Amino acid sequence: MATITVPAQVPPVSDDVEELHKAFEGALFNNRLVLLWILDPPERDAVLANEASKKFSTSDRALVEIACTRSSRDLHLARQAYHIKYQKSIEEDVASHTTGDFRKLLWPLVTSYRYEGDEVDMSLAKTEAKLLHDKISEKCYNDDDFIRIITTRSKAQINATLNQYKNDFGQDINKDLKADPKDEFLAMLRATIKSLTNPAKYFEKVLRLAMNRQGTDEGALTRVVATRAEFDMKTIKEEYQKRSSVSLDSAIAKDTRGDYEDMLLALVGSTDG
Amino acid sequence: MATITVPAQVPPVSDDVEELHKAFEGALFNNRLVLLWILDPPERDAVLANEASKKFSTSDRALVEIACTRSSRDLHLARQAYHIKYQKSIEEDVASHTTGDFRKLLWPLVTSYRYEGDEVDMSLAKTEAKLLHDKISEKCYNDDDFIRIITTRSKAQINATLNQYKNDFGQDINKDLKADPKDEFLAMLRATIKSLTNPAKYFEKVLRLAMNRQGTDEGALTRVVATRAEFDMKTIKEEYQKRSSVSLDSAIAKDTRGDYEDMLLALVGSTDG
Repeated sequence: MATITVPAQVPPVSDDVEELHKAFEGALFNNRLVLLWILDPPERDAVLANEASKKFSTSDRALVEIACTRSSRDLHLARQAYHIKYQKSIEEDVASHTTGDFRKLLWPLVTSYRYEGDEVDMSLAKTEAKLLHDKISEKCYNDDDFIRIITTRSKAQINATLNQYKNDFGQDINKDLKADPKDEFLAMLRATIKSLTNPAKYFEKVLRLAMNRQGTDEGALTRVVATRAEFDMKTIKEEYQKRSSVSLDSAIAKDTRGDYEDMLLALVGSTDG
Repeated sequence: MATITVPAQVPPVSDDVEELHKAFEGALFNNRLVLLWILDPPERDAVLANEASKKFSTSDRALVEIACTRSSRDLHLARQAYHIKYQKSIEEDVASHTTGDFRKLLWPLVTSYRYEGDEVDMSLAKTEAKLLHDKISEKCYNDDDFIRIITTRSKAQINATLNQYKNDFGQDINKDLKADPKDEFLAMLRATIKSLTNPAKYFEKVLRLAMNRQGTDEGALTRVVATRAEFDMKTIKEEYQKRSSVSLDSAIAKDTRGDYEDMLLALVGSTDG
């Protein structure tokens, strides 16, 4: 699913360096996209998590993405990289720079090491679907057990629970979490659930909203392209095409320009250019 | 500091098995100490954490010990072993089987991945010492920031903060956390702080209290001997001798008997027998 292909025969390092120089020719303008992309994934996640926790904004999705869309192992590698780069722990910064409900959600998210097996407990799914529904009905969105289920259960178990929720209560949990569309905490809960259960659709939406507005949201566009190019960008592009009826490449070409545009198109693996 | 010595020349596996059989001769009576000791440390911690979370008791110190006295890497290895053995995450079981203040403390403790460098921020130590003191004065022992400091800061930073506390407010924080000696949450907070800052003294006290009473606390005695024999038992024995004026070996010989006694003495590296 990666959009960057690895040659069958790995070239010598000197070739790599030359290729990189060529690729970045003209792009070396202290470009944040380049600066992020040249890091290895754990260090890149550490940098993004550090920025997001130190200048915490309730609408920033970097922490949610790192905690929910990486594998348990990759999240752990990011925590290791954070130690080395910042002489601190990720949870130390997240917990000390956030407050209230946002801290209550983000702190356990960034420290999670979820089980990754496929096994699900259907009886637990039923009980916890009801618990989630009860808490939503009571508008207790920050309930301890609500947060516990979302932040500790395996992705397979959460999927089973949310399918049960839909069966038993008639609609997607994220519809029920839209009671107040302006509530930033509800928005973060919806992003958490979507990124846990369907990361490609989650990223498609972030990209769509980043460009579907007056003034591109370069922060989000850069982050998603820099972090997903090596991984699931192909699937994200398919989701984008399906949902928007234009290709991600066209949207990028329309919304951005110059070296930034070139670099974005190179990273999403444009076939248009 | 280990009390089990490794031979200069490692013998073949068949010899090991024979030695083990000899060592356990007579001890193969479904002995919990044997069952725990034959596991490798991460699996042993996973077993202890699983038992402690599923039959949670506010006086059980297994979770605190695993979270606070192991290195960050070893705690992570225990979380990995937990996945394999129980098809769940450690935090999933801890958070779902505990409630209230105990959950609020234990959940972040077991998910922590503390920075392990020696660097300390003295200005932070001063601010956070004051915060801890303010919260204790207000009897807000479960305050979010109080818990955050104890569960996320590096051990070096916590040491600096607690030294600052003593300088600025005249006595050890654990003395101030004894306001109500019967309060089980305060007792767990004191154990957390002691095991983070002085594990050998912490374990010495657990052993002393396990034997210094009517009816030995075999649970605690077995756990500490099984988990520390390979690591810091030598230092723990020195602390024991200093504090109790008898050797740990003599105390064990006085309090236990039969195969259990033999196995305990073998693991603590008795020179009396």
